[in-house]
Parts: sequence; C-alpha cells; structure tokens
Amino acid sequence: MKLLRYGPSGQEKPGVLDAAGGIRDLSGIVDDLSSATLAAGALDKLKGTDIESLPTVSGNPRIGACVGAPGKVVCIGLNYSDHAAETGAEPPKEPIVFMKATSAVQGPNDTVRMPRNSKKSDWEVELGVIIGKHAKYVSEADALSHVAGYCVANDVSEREFQAERGGQWTKGKSCDTFGPIGPWLVTADEVADPQDLDMFLDVNGKRFQTGNTKTMIFSVAHIIHYCSQMFSLMPGDVIMTGTPPGVGLGVKPNPVFLKDGDEMYLGIAGLGEQRQKVVAD
Amino acid sequence: MKLLRYGPSGQEKPGVLDAAGGIRDLSGIVDDLSSATLAAGALDKLKGTDIESLPTVSGNPRIGACVGAPGKVVCIGLNYSDHAAETGAEPPKEPIVFMKATSAVQGPNDTVRMPRNSKKSDWEVELGVIIGKHAKYVSEADALSHVAGYCVANDVSEREFQAERGGQWTKGKSCDTFGPIGPWLVTADEVADPQDLDMFLDVNGKRFQTGNTKTMIFSVAHIIHYCSQMFSLMPGDVIMTGTPPGVGLGVKPNPVFLKDGDEMYLGIAGLGEQRQKVVAD
Repeated sequence: MKLLRYGPSGQEKPGVLDAAGGIRDLSGIVDDLSSATLAAGALDKLKGTDIESLPTVSGNPRIGACVGAPGKVVCIGLNYSDHAAETGAEPPKEPIVFMKATSAVQGPNDTVRMPRNSKKSDWEVELGVIIGKHAKYVSEADALSHVAGYCVANDVSEREFQAERGGQWTKGKSCDTFGPIGPWLVTADEVADPQDLDMFLDVNGKRFQTGNTKTMIFSVAHIIHYCSQMFSLMPGDVIMTGTPPGVGLGVKPNPVFLKDGDEMYLGIAGLGEQRQKVVAD
Repeated sequence: MKLLRYGPSGQEKPGVLDAAGGIRDLSGIVDDLSSATLAAGALDKLKGTDIESLPTVSGNPRIGACVGAPGKVVCIGLNYSDHAAETGAEPPKEPIVFMKATSAVQGPNDTVRMPRNSKKSDWEVELGVIIGKHAKYVSEADALSHVAGYCVANDVSEREFQAERGGQWTKGKSCDTFGPIGPWLVTADEVADPQDLDMFLDVNGKRFQTGNTKTMIFSVAHIIHYCSQMFSLMPGDVIMTGTPPGVGLGVKPNPVFLKDGDEMYLGIAGLGEQRQKVVAD
C-alpha cells in the first residue's frame, strides 16, 4: 500500500492511494499514520482493506509528512561509496549516526525555508525507512522485519552550520523545514529490494544527483541492526540512510548552494516524488 | 510549583508537590505534563491552583520523567569553563549542539542499563531546561520567557560509542535509559537565577562532580537564543545544558567508568535529586 497523510499541516488525515492514483480516506479505520498509531498496530488494522471501497478524497489536498510525530529522525552520514569518493572522505568503517530534529519534518512538497544567515543550504535525496516494530539488539537477518515501509526523504543541510560552527552536525541538519518526507509510506511488502532503487534530484530542472541504493556502504538491514545495539528504534522513527553523489557541496570547481526561488525535484523508483520551492527566511 | 509525573512507566499521571512534600494529583486539571499538554497551555491551566485542596496520592509511587514525550532532547557540549579546562579542550567559541534520542528519556530513579559491549559508560549531572513556548529567532533578552521550568538531568554517556566509533556523539548519548530527567519540573517562577545553582554527583557514595551553573560558558538564555536561530524549540523540548567538572573520563591518572551494581546520586539546589542503580544489559 501507498499510505499517506493529507490535509492542512497539523490536521492531516490518513489516506491511501487507489489503483487510479486517487486518494482514499482511511480515517474510518485508523486515526492517523503516526508514531502512536503505528505502535498501536495501525498497519495490522489496514491489512486486507478493500481500498477501492473506501471513500474518495476530492480536490487536490496538501500532502503531509508520511508519518506524524516521529519520535526521532536518525540519519546516516557518508553511506554511499560513490558519494564518499566524491567528497574525498575515507569510507566510514562503521555507520556515522547523527540526529535531525523532529521539528524539521514536513510534507514532501512544502516550502523549504533557508534560515536567516544561511549561505550554504544544500540538498540530499535519501531513502527513508520508517520503523514499524520496536527494534533492540536485532540481528541483521531479522532487521527488515522491523520496517513498516519506505519513503523519499530530502535531508536538507546547511553546510556552514553543519561543519563550520563548532562540533556536531546537528545544527546544520535540524533547521525547520529541512526534513521533507513522503509523499507516501510505501509498505515494505511493496518494495522488493530496498538495496536496488534508483534515485535522483534536480535543482531548477538540472540533474544534480543520480544514484542507486545498491551503492550504500551499509545496507538498511545493517543500519537497523547496528543502531539497535545502542538504542531502541521505535514505531514511527525515521531513518534517513545517506545520500548518493551530487550534493551542492561536491560540485567542482565551485560548490553550488540553494538560493531564494530555487526548486528542488527529487524521487526514488516506486516511492514517489517531491517538489520543494526554496525561500530565504 | 514542583510538577511531576507519577505511576508506572507509560501510564504516568500528572502531580504536584504540596507544602509537606507529599504528592497531589493534578489529573483533574490536566491530562499529563507532556509536549502535547504544554503546547495546549497546561501551565496556564494550573495557575492559581490551590494545591492543598487537591487529592493526595498515597503510597510511594514511581516518579516518571518530568515531561512526557519530549519532541527532542538538545544537548550542549563542553559548556562549563572548569570542565573544558579539565578535559584539556579549548573552550568552544559557540555552543556545541547535539541530540540525545528521545527514547533514552526515563524517570529520575529508574535503573540505568549499560548497553551490551559498553566499557566506558559515564555520568554527567546537568541543568535541564524544559521549553514552554515555541521559540524561533528569539533574542537573548527574551529567551527565558520561553522556559516552562528546570529539572535535574543525567546526560549518561558511553564514551567509546561517543568518540571512538566514527563520527558523531549521538551514538554514545542515545542509549536507552541514558536520559533520566526529574524528579520535578520546577516552574521558572521558582528559580530565581538559573545561573547560580549548585550541583553535585556521587557514585557509590563518593563525590565526583561539584559545580555551579555560574561557570557555564553559554548561559541558558544564550543557548535558547542561539538554537532558535537555527531551529524551533517547541513546548516540551528538553535542553541539557552541559556538565561541570568531575566526569569519569576526566579522572586522573586513569578514567573511571560505571560498572554493574554502581549507584549514582545527583542533584541540583532547589530542583531535587536523582538516584540510579546501574546494571549491565
């Protein structure tokens, strides 16, 4: 199923895509697609639902983040061998883990706002993983059974805040609007192989990122296994699994950063597409 | 007011300390003391409450985290001039910001579980700040008006995970049970000066940390101002503001780390005390 949340920010309702690509309303079955409802078994409740019999949603509503109120957003750094090569960084020996503030999460097509004093806002198309079942000390073999589904994510990043303002990356990753996820939470049963998904990102119609999840250094299963040795992954938690080559910071000879009025367009095969206008705060 | 949450984990009720030090039940006035209820004006609803007329809570219930479901836990690194000197690190020019997973948060006296393969689990008594009002682009002068209250926090840290496992500090800060907060959320009106609070931490009866918030490099007001230039601080968000000298990593000539069966005892003047047993997972 391609699950989604539609409606004004903060008032999203749960929905699902029907065979014709229209939205059907799920609010008669589950209250929301959120950390709380996933923990309470929302996906089980949706099993066997006859989508075509659900009420249709008319108009062209805003699409919200594909999971509401995630408890945390875990991000993996430098996780594509071709991206690591591009930046000149040594490929990491174990996953680099950092957090993005949950307050950065927004809908896939909501405007990305560059914070005041931002000079180096950048893009990162990433495979997002949404946890469905509490994961602690899980084996790599069992890891994917903890996944509710997958989504497109843009790990928007302010490179100066991230790397030139002292210490840790969180500052550059956590700005409001820097975490568009969706349009859909595509349930894990519909993703045959999360390690073979084409992905792309354009800025103003120019292709910057082209990649495939098969060049990940650490697979989704390994990341879940690895993180779960240190902390619990909870239903509704989001993992952004790293970005392929082509970020603005890596453009030679001079880096390219976002500017007021730009448009990002990104997508992953089978998981949908995002389109964000960029404005300066 | 000294607000608190009592009862079994996940089923906490809101309460308040009365003049005799007993717990009174607040659940007739607010549902919880959480990010959601703080955002919905819980503190306003409690204003003018006659505490002594509330129902008493009998027995000796478990005390939960003093705020439920925080949206994020922001931590400040190396924020005490005497602690920075102790570690040999250059005092930071601007705040070092990192995140602790919200899944690490627990009650002030709940057992701290060292994760499997932990060799370097360590303690950090810290002043915790609980945000009461959305803060974005706030001035330092206005910053403290966004504070709901203060609490004791133990920013438990696995030093090997934090610094020797590649990249970012999050791994060593986010282990389950590594975020005891409470016992109380002491409302801001009861804390005359957050920059003059004595604090201590003992392990097995031996004093390791002694400090006062007046040696903070960046004040609470500055931290809120600073973070809010980059991301929103939301009601219920917790900021752990850094630790004074005396962590295990800093003990000379050999660092001291936690071991199975240890007991931590820590507190901050006016904000209460915590006591945690340590067990190996």
